[in-house]
Amino acid sequence: MDWTQRPSQALLTDLYELTMMQAYVEESMEAEAVFDLYVRRLPPTRNYLLACGLDDVLRYLETLRFDAAALDYLRSLGGFSERFLRYLQQLRFRGDVYAVLEGTPVFAYEPLVQIVAPLPQAQLIETLVMNQISVQTVLASKAARVVAAAAGRSVVDFGFRRMHGIDAGLKAARAFHIAGVSATSNVAAGQIYGIPVAGTMAHSYVQAHDRELDAFRRFVRLYPDTTLLVDTYDTLAGVEQVVALARELGSEFRVRAIRLDSGDLAELAAKARQVLDAAGLSSVRIFASGGLDDTVVAALVNGGAPIDAFGVGTDMGVSRDAPSLDIAYKLVSYAGVDRIKLSPGKLVLPGRKQVYRVERNGVAARDVIALAEEPPQGRPLLVPVMKQGQRVPAGGEHLDEARRRAADETERLPSRLRGLSAADPAYAVEVSPLLQRHYHESARALAPDGE
Amino acid sequence: MDWTQRPSQALLTDLYELTMMQAYVEESMEAEAVFDLYVRRLPPTRNYLLACGLDDVLRYLETLRFDAAALDYLRSLGGFSERFLRYLQQLRFRGDVYAVLEGTPVFAYEPLVQIVAPLPQAQLIETLVMNQISVQTVLASKAARVVAAAAGRSVVDFGFRRMHGIDAGLKAARAFHIAGVSATSNVAAGQIYGIPVAGTMAHSYVQAHDRELDAFRRFVRLYPDTTLLVDTYDTLAGVEQVVALARELGSEFRVRAIRLDSGDLAELAAKARQVLDAAGLSSVRIFASGGLDDTVVAALVNGGAPIDAFGVGTDMGVSRDAPSLDIAYKLVSYAGVDRIKLSPGKLVLPGRKQVYRVERNGVAARDVIALAEEPPQGRPLLVPVMKQGQRVPAGGEHLDEARRRAADETERLPSRLRGLSAADPAYAVEVSPLLQRHYHESARALAPDGE
Repeated sequence: MDWTQRPSQALLTDLYELTMMQAYVEESMEAEAVFDLYVRRLPPTRNYLLACGLDDVLRYLETLRFDAAALDYLRSLGGFSERFLRYLQQLRFRGDVYAVLEGTPVFAYEPLVQIVAPLPQAQLIETLVMNQISVQTVLASKAARVVAAAAGRSVVDFGFRRMHGIDAGLKAARAFHIAGVSATSNVAAGQIYGIPVAGTMAHSYVQAHDRELDAFRRFVRLYPDTTLLVDTYDTLAGVEQVVALARELGSEFRVRAIRLDSGDLAELAAKARQVLDAAGLSSVRIFASGGLDDTVVAALVNGGAPIDAFGVGTDMGVSRDAPSLDIAYKLVSYAGVDRIKLSPGKLVLPGRKQVYRVERNGVAARDVIALAEEPPQGRPLLVPVMKQGQRVPAGGEHLDEARRRAADETERLPSRLRGLSAADPAYAVEVSPLLQRHYHESARALAPDGE
Repeated sequence: MDWTQRPSQALLTDLYELTMMQAYVEESMEAEAVFDLYVRRLPPTRNYLLACGLDDVLRYLETLRFDAAALDYLRSLGGFSERFLRYLQQLRFRGDVYAVLEGTPVFAYEPLVQIVAPLPQAQLIETLVMNQISVQTVLASKAARVVAAAAGRSVVDFGFRRMHGIDAGLKAARAFHIAGVSATSNVAAGQIYGIPVAGTMAHSYVQAHDRELDAFRRFVRLYPDTTLLVDTYDTLAGVEQVVALARELGSEFRVRAIRLDSGDLAELAAKARQVLDAAGLSSVRIFASGGLDDTVVAALVNGGAPIDAFGVGTDMGVSRDAPSLDIAYKLVSYAGVDRIKLSPGKLVLPGRKQVYRVERNGVAARDVIALAEEPPQGRPLLVPVMKQGQRVPAGGEHLDEARRRAADETERLPSRLRGLSAADPAYAVEVSPLLQRHYHESARALAPDGE
């Protein structure tokens, strides 16, 4: 990406992280801090979130450096001492990280990532850790709904063109793959993640030829088993052109599918299916795209539309109904002392924690957020993924492991959580009595009239 | 950004662009194509859009190359011939680009960018041109509303942590600057764009100290003219700590502002103002943040809340009420012949065009979309910005020119468009009679029962 200006990696942060860091260093406040990254509440249209983004977080932490350009820029701002800039030059992330593995369903107040590191290091990384977990979890969680709605039919990611920039386009393709999407149109994502890419033709190809049948004929000569886009002028007339091409080519005809991209997809798919079947082309599949999201896909599937695969773009690509999460990264312990804040509506649970998933007959019944020191109360979700700045295991896991985990763990949720409507009752997340006691003790100590 | 896998620049595209390109090359279809990039309809919550993203588009076009890694990856996919891969290796963008300059208000169906280039080149670039214009225009247009709502008070971008990835965070800061936002918390955006950065302290700084007053005292020692965050435990008690600090420091006290980040901001700002004024601290400003967007800012301003500046994060950062645009990139001419498509609800206007803004007494009255060959009908908005792959003027324009243009051009809109509610009547955009005639002629020729 040489074409776009590239910033120094370590400057992908908010300015206040650096002003606070300088103050911590001045005050010799470099004792161990614990920060939790969690979502305060699920969007109303999500029964669970699919944790995603950890791999990029760990790679960032492993390679975090202030280069000369970063230090020069900070010097130019005027507020940082040479002593602090030298400190930054030496800085490496040396902390421990505990996290819920990618592809795991998670709920409100459960730490997705817990950072244990010297306070200045743990503070600096806040912004980018949040940014990456947030966007990838937002997008994986939306895609999980689309995949569920498609009920076994393939879903292909078409969203890059309307997503929020390049990084979103790449991370979306990755998050969608974890959530069960079959392929992406994004070639760069195929290159760097090795996930399947898909794509055949756009309307412009048809338009650039003088007649639709010429366009089909020539495209099929080069790509015999392609998908033909039939709605450039009139969908059913386009399907008839495919039938004409099949007659023309006889046994050479190997077109795999037609694509519908506009109009009433249910009605057009039914009519197209009839036309194709009547012409003996029952092996030609129907691929639908254009304005799809989880609810539209569900309506098409439930209505029995003869659609074999879905191309889903914008609404999944920006997670239109829930484009952000109320995600927080909060100090919960410093120098061995529990820390919370009391800002209204923004609960912080103190201390090192564990999240347990309690299952009955292989189905998740409830989660318990407990202190790390408590005895196990179910299957622990937070696992060590980094020790003193090094990944464990080294290199992390393959993307397909996260994809398998997402499929397995989602299958183990109560079925009411996998539907598109709000689960009733919502999934139960409990705070252990001991953790509750710690919270109330901390709150009492901090209340203005406290002690 | 060495920490994150970096794809080949030229692969930031959809696979179908490449399959179509190979077909065009096979068919020797390399004549001149004209593509329009435009928005089909404005989101219901936008009276206008602020065009943004052109600078990155032009830099991309100037530097577009297939490197060895890109060609190796495409070879691995199996569908591309060695002849086509050699063609890609030689490929440079040599087209002309006409565009509406950044910071210009635009409306539905107006081409923001018009590409005139050999068909394969114009096809390849579709995805990334759309991606960059889309995200930057989405974000600039949202920020314009927040800036309007703040009615002269400063707006600071706090959104990086919850935006859709790194590129979004950078491009947002840039788009927000163009739209009139005063500063960003995003340090990397400050480094690469030279825009002002801002930030002081988070709750974690207060929490990491045993007492709030200790935290304030120490922070002010290092940053005497800082902003103190007062809502970690109890907002008004926090304000009292600031007053205590002022008494303690006497004439040394130079704190510039307090920041409120939770609770009923109108009520807390009013009470904090009283407390500060009563203590002789009327020069201490009040900065508000936490859950703000255009409508909340407007309510605070219209309600007379004594807030001097706003930190706006998530909702502006993802443009929550309109996170995407119905943006299209459509072939409108190939080899000198007008081209359109007829898919329902997706109008394409044929041919090379111009957009004119017709003003009366310095106020925009209506726009006219016309053929480029027609005589001028107002102030032309599309200007040549690239000739045969080279920018004109070389290097493009400074970001601050776009910022000034946004302020000037927005000021020249009818005032009803600058409000937050739907303008009634909406702004008038006309299609010239000649362009209408061209459309109908093209449609007649294409209709299934046509000729």
